[in-house]
Amino acid sequence: MLKATSAHLKSLGLTGPGLIIDEARARTNIRDMADKARRSGVVFRPHFKTHQSPAVARWFAAEGVDRITVSSVRMAEQFAETGWRDITIAFLLNPLEAPRVANLAAYLGRKGGRLGVTVDSVAAAKAAAGLDVDIWVKVDTGYGRTGVPWDATSRLDEVLAAIDRPAGLLTHAGQSYQARGHDEILEIHTRTVARLAGLRPGLKISIGDTPCCSTVPEFAGVDEIRPGNFVFYDLMQLQIGSCTENRMAAAAVCPVVGLYPERNRIVVHGGAVHLSKESLETGGRRIFGRLGTLHFPAGGRNIGLGGILDEAPVVSLSQEHGVIEGDGAITGQLAIGDLVLVWPVHSCLLGGLQDNVTILA
Amino acid sequence: MLKATSAHLKSLGLTGPGLIIDEARARTNIRDMADKARRSGVVFRPHFKTHQSPAVARWFAAEGVDRITVSSVRMAEQFAETGWRDITIAFLLNPLEAPRVANLAAYLGRKGGRLGVTVDSVAAAKAAAGLDVDIWVKVDTGYGRTGVPWDATSRLDEVLAAIDRPAGLLTHAGQSYQARGHDEILEIHTRTVARLAGLRPGLKISIGDTPCCSTVPEFAGVDEIRPGNFVFYDLMQLQIGSCTENRMAAAAVCPVVGLYPERNRIVVHGGAVHLSKESLETGGRRIFGRLGTLHFPAGGRNIGLGGILDEAPVVSLSQEHGVIEGDGAITGQLAIGDLVLVWPVHSCLLGGLQDNVTILA
Repeated sequence: MLKATSAHLKSLGLTGPGLIIDEARARTNIRDMADKARRSGVVFRPHFKTHQSPAVARWFAAEGVDRITVSSVRMAEQFAETGWRDITIAFLLNPLEAPRVANLAAYLGRKGGRLGVTVDSVAAAKAAAGLDVDIWVKVDTGYGRTGVPWDATSRLDEVLAAIDRPAGLLTHAGQSYQARGHDEILEIHTRTVARLAGLRPGLKISIGDTPCCSTVPEFAGVDEIRPGNFVFYDLMQLQIGSCTENRMAAAAVCPVVGLYPERNRIVVHGGAVHLSKESLETGGRRIFGRLGTLHFPAGGRNIGLGGILDEAPVVSLSQEHGVIEGDGAITGQLAIGDLVLVWPVHSCLLGGLQDNVTILA
Repeated sequence: MLKATSAHLKSLGLTGPGLIIDEARARTNIRDMADKARRSGVVFRPHFKTHQSPAVARWFAAEGVDRITVSSVRMAEQFAETGWRDITIAFLLNPLEAPRVANLAAYLGRKGGRLGVTVDSVAAAKAAAGLDVDIWVKVDTGYGRTGVPWDATSRLDEVLAAIDRPAGLLTHAGQSYQARGHDEILEIHTRTVARLAGLRPGLKISIGDTPCCSTVPEFAGVDEIRPGNFVFYDLMQLQIGSCTENRMAAAAVCPVVGLYPERNRIVVHGGAVHLSKESLETGGRRIFGRLGTLHFPAGGRNIGLGGILDEAPVVSLSQEHGVIEGDGAITGQLAIGDLVLVWPVHSCLLGGLQDNVTILA
């Protein structure tokens, strides 16, 4: 299968590090999440930081999505340029960027759209107060990164007092990334919603992490969902239990540049700048990705991404090099100059591949 | 000092994540390495993958450098476009890129320059044989990543037999990154040179890692050096013992977006996409950077990068967020919207900041 994978990737004219997206899988991921949001009657405002791609953005539009989330002012500007009109920046407002935010808000306003920002302090709330934007208050429901702690009620009072008409309460339950399996994920989701529900009746509630949004059968007690990672999923989501292998929709394509069967190693052009040094612990070791293959349906059409070769993990990354472990059964199939697929640990951190994207349609 | 640092960075018009380079420090680093190479009578062919900046490249040119090293064909093309004529790609040749390499070699040849490539297999040697390039054979002197193992003499024979006139033997003693202190570094250097020296008398020898190149008093037994990281150094080089704090020449500038004195945390806009998730172990914990300050000389001129705040490490990174630990003495000096400096663990992995660079001259 490694030989056939390489041959097909070469037939597409690929030569070096790049990103492969399986359109059918990504569209399935998008459709399922959009359907669940629709059934639950909540706003689906997907996070676009994962793909940052105008092409993938159109697949969301095809499912009726017209409101999006981004994680920086720059990303908001970029998607505004490609026609998106209703954008929430779900990253704490940097007061130094207030003039730039005002400019973007005015642009979106002229187009009939709307910009949302996020704050968790009186200082940022005051900086946002002068802008024509929706202001969401970030609440920390247990992740411990940013947000007003859900039980710090007087601090929440102070922040809300600095805002004329808050858009609502927004959280990212990033603690779900520590969960393993549906039960643990659902427990986190239930606790997250409970911690927000009683805080300020009447204010909208927006939640956002992929593990919870992927796992709950329907959304109750919230008004909006903002997952992002689910469009591609990845090895980390698979480990958490938010997806199955056949939902993983993005992989790196890397050329084999070194083969060392005597020590069970393959070296590819595909390093920290391509995959990021994001890692996961599995079986007592740290890995940075896994080798994968294409899927060749009978009939030879609709070739897409396939499965994982569990026995071939990426065991180290330097700036441009990826080192993959593989015994003779793996190395024996490969030659210098072959192309392989590498499943990433975290698909949100593939920015270094974004100028070389291939879509398997 | 944090207040003054923020005020000065704001006075430069900075607002968001960016890279700050201290020109005086970087030029000192370049000059010292160039001088040592000159004294030792070896070719100084610095690796440009660390900075990837035309501006920094000119500081090398000012020290007489006209031969450079890069780690990809694309990087070679980029520096060729800005006038560099003698370039070695010190990354194993990907045979699929042979046409692109041929094209670049022809371009450099027309300009009176020369392209070098690196191989460690018969397959890659054959792919290179048809090109008008210098062919270096990569030797593994103990790092264990790529290269013909120094003691695999028959394999070296096979690779050399496939090359008409090899340019020489090239190694990267990356094992020096595991060393701590001058003695351990020098031991690795001595062993590296010894392993290459006897291999093929008459062939040139090129070495490249920053710890060894920074530490040896002079270069004996080699013909060329290719360090890269030394231009900026970083926390990892400081931990290894290759540099002193006042040689570190590049830091990230990040806005404070969240302040949580109740749990000794500061959150900045500066995450994995900016600093990379490269980490180091220190005092039993994993850190991703450290807070820093500017240096304000008496008289108010020549403001440059300053020192490290050891008590304020970056304890976690997500895509856009950096989480810094700091007690009341740190958080008490900071406000939302202040700018801070973050020293990186590995200055070669700051590509996400390269479109927003400020030079302190």
